[in-house]
Amino acid sequence: MARPLVRKPRVDLAPAIRDAAAGLFAERGFEATTMQNIADRVGVTGPGLYYYYSSKQALLFDVLYRGIEHALAVIGGAVAAARATSPGNATAALEAFVARHVAYQIEAASVGAVYGAAFYGSRHMFNALTEEQRVSLQKLQRQGLDLARGILEEGQATGEFRVPNLTQAALALIGMGEYVPTWYKVGGSLSAADVGQIYAEMALRLVGAMDPGGIPEAT
Amino acid sequence: MARPLVRKPRVDLAPAIRDAAAGLFAERGFEATTMQNIADRVGVTGPGLYYYYSSKQALLFDVLYRGIEHALAVIGGAVAAARATSPGNATAALEAFVARHVAYQIEAASVGAVYGAAFYGSRHMFNALTEEQRVSLQKLQRQGLDLARGILEEGQATGEFRVPNLTQAALALIGMGEYVPTWYKVGGSLSAADVGQIYAEMALRLVGAMDPGGIPEAT
Repeated sequence: MARPLVRKPRVDLAPAIRDAAAGLFAERGFEATTMQNIADRVGVTGPGLYYYYSSKQALLFDVLYRGIEHALAVIGGAVAAARATSPGNATAALEAFVARHVAYQIEAASVGAVYGAAFYGSRHMFNALTEEQRVSLQKLQRQGLDLARGILEEGQATGEFRVPNLTQAALALIGMGEYVPTWYKVGGSLSAADVGQIYAEMALRLVGAMDPGGIPEAT
Repeated sequence: MARPLVRKPRVDLAPAIRDAAAGLFAERGFEATTMQNIADRVGVTGPGLYYYYSSKQALLFDVLYRGIEHALAVIGGAVAAARATSPGNATAALEAFVARHVAYQIEAASVGAVYGAAFYGSRHMFNALTEEQRVSLQKLQRQGLDLARGILEEGQATGEFRVPNLTQAALALIGMGEYVPTWYKVGGSLSAADVGQIYAEMALRLVGAMDPGGIPEAT
């Protein structure tokens, strides 16, 4: 008996569909994945899938958009918590930003691979998006950059940091972290938190918050 | 009249074929590119293409292998030149490594996009390679990491640098640079050399070679 998924879904299958799509795009690539592959993995009918997403392109956009949005919420939350605990302390905020950003890269492997393919890889995935969708994604990415840049500005103002070029330093900190999943081995000697801590320390050196001996200059 | 490309090519078309394949993989993706697309772009017949490469997978490997090999030669050459000019000066060697690595990311956009898709992106491209091919590529990447790590070790030995974790610092420096093509705008206010210089300075801070005021500690 066919279940009436098209009309009245009783549960919201959108998150499961996005997870399946992210996994398949990551494993097989965007071009080689069909809507039917995605429906099969979730265990819904074709019409059940189209109830949620009108096209593979719409799914790609949503995977990327919600992926970046979620990363921003998690990393922004860690920064907000550090600011609540240590008000006016840009060093603590930067440590929280970098440590959480790096750990998130390791944790969010599937979405990360789709993101990596779309932004580092072949232009065909990015070209599959509409101009409006690309602008939306770039606005979100800009929020991440502004979050990092804002912490550096704050540390510059308090005298904690000495950064000649705030935007370039923010981009470098993000780039350092986004490279981590390319070499990180799950189950190896370093936990995601360990790597986060090592990167937080390198970030503080990069922004001039630590003297070369590794002792914080201002906290 | 059919030209006898299959038997006796008068010129070596392999470099042109690799360029065309890198461009197409970058634009359309590996899966969506056919051997016929590549032959059409180069202007050779199908058999002419197969004279050089037996499969799309063989081409993917060769694009990646020669891409990394070329990057290593260019960056290694810059480091060797710095060492010849300033023997025993790890600061100069690191500046050369970072500046050239960053500028290279900007210059080698097509191969970079294929590399990005294979290493940051979806596993399907990496999975298209044989285990032997993957090991060969990882060995080359390891050479790049060892080049960076060797400079940091040298600076540690001379007292120029103070780096708590040499491997992590080397990975961070490479990651910073590999992120550059995601935001760099050709024709914008910064040249590839400008960005290289900014990154070289950040790298020196990260390894403790400069005090937070930006003045080199040891040169």
